[in-house]
Amino acid sequence: MQLLKDRIKKDGKIRAGNVLKVDSFLNHQMDIELFGEIGKEFKKRFADCEVTKILTIEASGIGIACVAAQYFEVPVVFAKKNQTKNIAGDVYTGKVESFTHGRVYDIIVAKEFLKAEDKVLIIDDFLANGNALLGLAKLVKDAGASLVGAGIVIEKGFQEGGALVRASGVRVESLAIIESMNEDSGVVFRD
Amino acid sequence: MQLLKDRIKKDGKIRAGNVLKVDSFLNHQMDIELFGEIGKEFKKRFADCEVTKILTIEASGIGIACVAAQYFEVPVVFAKKNQTKNIAGDVYTGKVESFTHGRVYDIIVAKEFLKAEDKVLIIDDFLANGNALLGLAKLVKDAGASLVGAGIVIEKGFQEGGALVRASGVRVESLAIIESMNEDSGVVFRD
Repeated sequence: MQLLKDRIKKDGKIRAGNVLKVDSFLNHQMDIELFGEIGKEFKKRFADCEVTKILTIEASGIGIACVAAQYFEVPVVFAKKNQTKNIAGDVYTGKVESFTHGRVYDIIVAKEFLKAEDKVLIIDDFLANGNALLGLAKLVKDAGASLVGAGIVIEKGFQEGGALVRASGVRVESLAIIESMNEDSGVVFRD
Repeated sequence: MQLLKDRIKKDGKIRAGNVLKVDSFLNHQMDIELFGEIGKEFKKRFADCEVTKILTIEASGIGIACVAAQYFEVPVVFAKKNQTKNIAGDVYTGKVESFTHGRVYDIIVAKEFLKAEDKVLIIDDFLANGNALLGLAKLVKDAGASLVGAGIVIEKGFQEGGALVRASGVRVESLAIIESMNEDSGVVFRD
C-alpha cells in the first residue's frame, strides 16, 4: 500500500533494538483519515471472504480494527491483556510474549463473543515475532470458529513472525512489509 | 441519545458493586454501527466548537474515539496506562485511580502530540468517579492546550464524577446518564 509506505518513510523513526516508532500516525497519535484508507485496503484484499467478526488486541489494534470494521459491516472484539473483574469466568485465554514490552501476558476473550459459526478476520498494527497473532489465532481455534486470515498494517519481514504464521496455514495480508531497516539507510520495503 | 439508552436497557447487565456490563456492544465486543451514531451525536453536540484533536485513554475509549474522529476530521491521541520502552522521556503524566480495577495507574501522553495551540475534545466510554477524565484534563492543562469539553457515552449519574468535573469548569456531554440502577428495577435514566 503505497500511501502507507510513503508515510512510514516520512514519519517512521528507527530506534535501537529493531524498534520502528510510528507513534505520530499509527499507535499513539492516530491519523484517522489514513485508518480509513487502511480499512478500505483490508476490505479489498479480503473481498472474496465472508467475515462475521473482526478480532484484535488492545490497545493499538483497536482503532484500526474499528475503522476497518465499517467497511466489513461487522462487530469488533478485542482481546484484553489482563483479567479484570468485569470479565466473567467464561473466557478463552492464551499467553503472549510481547516484543515491545519484554514480558509475558495473558490474553482473554469472553466465550460469548467468539462462536463456532463465526468467520473471523484478525486485524493488528504490527507483526514481528508473531506471538500476538498466534495467540489470537489460538483463541479463534479454541472457539471452534473459522479463521479467515489476518490483516496487518506493518510486518517486520526480517523477523520470523510472518513466516511462522503463514506456515501454520493462516492467510496473512500485510500492507507494508519491511525487508530491512537501520538508522543510516532507513527503511527498505519488500516488493 | 435514545438509540443508546434503548441498547443499554436491552443488553446492559447490572452486577454487584454498581457495575454495568455493556461488553456485548461497547467495551469488549463493539457495535461499530452504533459507534457511528455515537460519533455523529458527539459531532452534533460540539458543532459550535473548534476541535483540533481528540484525546482518549486506552483501551475501551479508543474505538469510540476513532470512529467519532471521522466526523470531526481530526487525529486521535490515546493516553497510555503504563510506560513502555517505545515512549521516549518527553511525556505528560498523571495518576488515575480506576473504579473498575481498584488500583492506581499512570497515564502518559508524549509531549509532541499535545501542543499549546490544540483545542482538545476528550472522549471516553464511561464517567463514574471522574478520575480518568480529571487525569486527562490535567494532561491537556499541562500541555497549555485548550479543553473544549468531554464527550462521554455512559455517565453514572449516581456517582460523583459528573458533578466534580462540571464543577471544575469542564463542559461534559454524556449521551446516557444513569440516575439509578439495580438488579430488580433495572436502569433508570436521568431526563
